[in-house]
Amino acid sequence: MNDRLPRAPGRLIALEGIDGCGKSTQAERLARATGALLTFEPGDTALGHRIRQLVLGSSPGEGPVPRAEALLLAADRAQHLAEVVAPALEAGRWVVSDRFSGSTLAYQGWGHGLDGSGLRDVVDWAATGRWPDLSVLVEVPLELAAERMARSRPDRLEALGDDFRARVADGFRRLAAEDPAGWLVVDGSGPVDQVAVAIAQGVRHRLGWPGPAVG
Amino acid sequence: MNDRLPRAPGRLIALEGIDGCGKSTQAERLARATGALLTFEPGDTALGHRIRQLVLGSSPGEGPVPRAEALLLAADRAQHLAEVVAPALEAGRWVVSDRFSGSTLAYQGWGHGLDGSGLRDVVDWAATGRWPDLSVLVEVPLELAAERMARSRPDRLEALGDDFRARVADGFRRLAAEDPAGWLVVDGSGPVDQVAVAIAQGVRHRLGWPGPAVG
Repeated sequence: MNDRLPRAPGRLIALEGIDGCGKSTQAERLARATGALLTFEPGDTALGHRIRQLVLGSSPGEGPVPRAEALLLAADRAQHLAEVVAPALEAGRWVVSDRFSGSTLAYQGWGHGLDGSGLRDVVDWAATGRWPDLSVLVEVPLELAAERMARSRPDRLEALGDDFRARVADGFRRLAAEDPAGWLVVDGSGPVDQVAVAIAQGVRHRLGWPGPAVG
Repeated sequence: MNDRLPRAPGRLIALEGIDGCGKSTQAERLARATGALLTFEPGDTALGHRIRQLVLGSSPGEGPVPRAEALLLAADRAQHLAEVVAPALEAGRWVVSDRFSGSTLAYQGWGHGLDGSGLRDVVDWAATGRWPDLSVLVEVPLELAAERMARSRPDRLEALGDDFRARVADGFRRLAAEDPAGWLVVDGSGPVDQVAVAIAQGVRHRLGWPGPAVG
């Protein structure tokens, strides 16, 4: 059995960015506006929920080494794709995922400094060669993201500190710059409604729109 | 940080084969004879123990899809290598592991039919390019292995049945045939002592011997 998937008719849009950038809110808004299936990583399957605990649940200094962390997140993505994303895409639905492959490249590649091309191959294999039709980078200044996150208890990756977060943010910017056709960069520092309009307009411009035009 | 490891002075020997072939007993014997550190996959770290439960603990039909399963086992290996195997090798110790990368290629590659070269790249990346100095395939007829296993409760992979087991056994044979310098094939159907002598002699012939000669 080879589970590499044929190209499906639906469209996959990933919302990406550092914690506190507002992408979860924006993913929800975009899914509602387009009628897309809203999903997230890591953890949106029964297996993924347990993987998420292994990756994010422990304290800094415990938990997986960076390479194991990347592979656990890739395993979560393989399951997420097979169980949730691919069936929806094959049925012609649009899917909006709060994080996808870009997050692994930014966090584990740039954040942890794992070698880039090898990691990219692993990420590609995990997702059977499927990359988002569009990744939306919601960019905010590091200080604003930190301020928004200060209210919640940090998970293991969030607790890695300012230098780590800065490397991840830099990684996202580089990924978007290297692949302008695959990424849309949106300023996330304004009001939620304004950011939602910018994302909706960008998505419509790049991919068209599955339902009636909004935004 | 790049955690790709420099070549260490110790030697890594993997005992490989289908369940019921006797490799765990033989790994123990070989480790005792050579003074090597005895270890195993999956599960010989705190993280690995939890990964093992995700991979083997559920029922057939539940649990990870094959691609996620391969990535979970690769994550276990990355952690196992970083925490246990690499420090021992760097200290000049020999390590005997009950299963290593060959098992992923045989079970997930041949058994589940995942594409071979992509999987091999993932396995290579997970182990920072480290492969065993020697993999010992303990070969027994499928019927003998099944008879030995009949006494114990099968895990999720063992419960996949005769066809799966036959593909895995075939995979191991092909891996050994493709890389005769990296593999030693030993007939595991005789008495334990006789198999132990054959393995010890083969290891000594291929790698030399860390302590006083035995076998």
